[in-house]
Amino acid sequence: MSTTRLIALDWGTTSLRAYRLGDDGVVLDKRGLPWGIMNLPTIDTTVGDGNNNSSRDAGFVRAFDEACGDWLRDAPGTPVIAAGMVGSAQGWREAAYVDMPLAVADVGKQLTRVEIAAGLVLHIVPGLLQRTGLPNVLRGEETQVVGVLESLEGDAEVLIGLPGTHSKWVRVQARRMTHFDTFMTGEVYAVLSQHTILGRTMERGDEPDNAAFERGLRVAQTEEGRAGVLSNIFSSRTLSLVGELSPRSQPDYLSGLLIGHEIAALKSTREAAGCAPSPHIILIGDDKLCARYQAALNLYGLNLNGIDIAAQATETGLWKIALQAGLLS
Amino acid sequence: MSTTRLIALDWGTTSLRAYRLGDDGVVLDKRGLPWGIMNLPTIDTTVGDGNNNSSRDAGFVRAFDEACGDWLRDAPGTPVIAAGMVGSAQGWREAAYVDMPLAVADVGKQLTRVEIAAGLVLHIVPGLLQRTGLPNVLRGEETQVVGVLESLEGDAEVLIGLPGTHSKWVRVQARRMTHFDTFMTGEVYAVLSQHTILGRTMERGDEPDNAAFERGLRVAQTEEGRAGVLSNIFSSRTLSLVGELSPRSQPDYLSGLLIGHEIAALKSTREAAGCAPSPHIILIGDDKLCARYQAALNLYGLNLNGIDIAAQATETGLWKIALQAGLLS
Repeated sequence: MSTTRLIALDWGTTSLRAYRLGDDGVVLDKRGLPWGIMNLPTIDTTVGDGNNNSSRDAGFVRAFDEACGDWLRDAPGTPVIAAGMVGSAQGWREAAYVDMPLAVADVGKQLTRVEIAAGLVLHIVPGLLQRTGLPNVLRGEETQVVGVLESLEGDAEVLIGLPGTHSKWVRVQARRMTHFDTFMTGEVYAVLSQHTILGRTMERGDEPDNAAFERGLRVAQTEEGRAGVLSNIFSSRTLSLVGELSPRSQPDYLSGLLIGHEIAALKSTREAAGCAPSPHIILIGDDKLCARYQAALNLYGLNLNGIDIAAQATETGLWKIALQAGLLS
Repeated sequence: MSTTRLIALDWGTTSLRAYRLGDDGVVLDKRGLPWGIMNLPTIDTTVGDGNNNSSRDAGFVRAFDEACGDWLRDAPGTPVIAAGMVGSAQGWREAAYVDMPLAVADVGKQLTRVEIAAGLVLHIVPGLLQRTGLPNVLRGEETQVVGVLESLEGDAEVLIGLPGTHSKWVRVQARRMTHFDTFMTGEVYAVLSQHTILGRTMERGDEPDNAAFERGLRVAQTEEGRAGVLSNIFSSRTLSLVGELSPRSQPDYLSGLLIGHEIAALKSTREAAGCAPSPHIILIGDDKLCARYQAALNLYGLNLNGIDIAAQATETGLWKIALQAGLLS
């Protein structure tokens, strides 16, 4: 067994991923557990003081122990770092948001310490808060940004896209995170499909319908796109009524329609801010979802300086942040 | 008891309203029943042939009888007309959509007849289908448009707004319905509030928070508005995180944000189509909701030629359509 240098936790709302990292941050071992912060293991506190905070704390401790207790017993004193919703107000301990803009190299300078036991400290990475205009927050994505940025050379602008339930687009200029946007595209897609009239005529197919997806993608750039998302989504139903869209094509059509509006809006905000028309783009996330976003970026002409898809961003980011923080001296 | 001239039914998805109309369409009597087409009375068919269509037909017959059977027994031979989802594919009998554009005076020329019993015919008003661009449909609103238009003089453009679960905006030029838009604003508001992370921090107050509503309204016209609905809605949460929006203000803020985007998009589509910047507007719907839309129209400068709020549009429309159809000769 190689030497353990860092234990890194990606601790979100619905899951907990643990990594045992060795020299240079190489992944020696990893495991996934269902213990997201909204889904902690239940602890029997009937013999305790009945205090809810204690019970909740005990849930975090139990989850932590299942994630990496054995690794720590094998390598006592190994530093431990975590990113994600574990640092939110609903998490184990709130790791206050750090204001934007922020140098990528400075993320590790403001970690929050949680004393779990004598000599055992969990270091939690802060989220980011953008106060200009409508406020915006992210938590967890800052670590992925560090993960991909540290391996890049030069000061050219990079636009980092993190599609998902809430898509984040982080603008990095001269190695500083200068701006980010949030789009609730994934969550909106889910509720439209599950809880509105649009879902009633949908059927799920076994294979993705790429033609329907691309048809949806294009809507935002047509004349009808001016009517906006609130209007355009109705076409998932009406195209079906006139026989132009089958029930199995509707889910992918709606997905494309929403992602197309997201990318069209992203492009519009960049133009208004005087940004480069086509920056170097890095996508981080699920492969299939990244492929969808890549198609959208191509269609809207944001692909001219290349689109890369990054893997292992979180574990690499946690390693780099631990280095920034001096945990690996 | 005055002479019954027409029995008029406003038969939607969740409710059925019945009107007994006398000379000149004056309302002599009215009643509301819960028998929308998705909520018909249950009929015991265990002694019948078990045919589902028969059972469903029996539900329609029972609902119809409760709505106006006594009126018809008192005034046999009175014509009966209905509008709304009762004419949809899921209704009693499908009243096929009529293609746009359509003269307001011609709505009554294509009624669908349902023979309920010997000598008893239900006449169902057709919905409208717009095939240009993304297809669009409405059903029920055509009757309200006739209701308000027939009492107006002149050929000037009128924009008729019907806010609700799905807002409809119908453009009437030279007494012809030439275009309409649909916005799923009401339904999107409901699912965002009930089924997404935005709802988790919301609290319902006893009184509407007009300041929060107006703050939301303005978002679409700010620089941040360029990021669009999918992005802007997240601010309902983030403004709360930074202490700028209380849990009780969030529902009205989100309502304003969505309605503001709807009106901004409506304005944009009108500009692109070369329409008058500020047409005469008539709003039809719930008073409180109409007041919200009036505020939005004022803010976005669409109010310069007046905004009227219409009442009794459906019953008036059904009377006028029956006249068009020659049912009241």
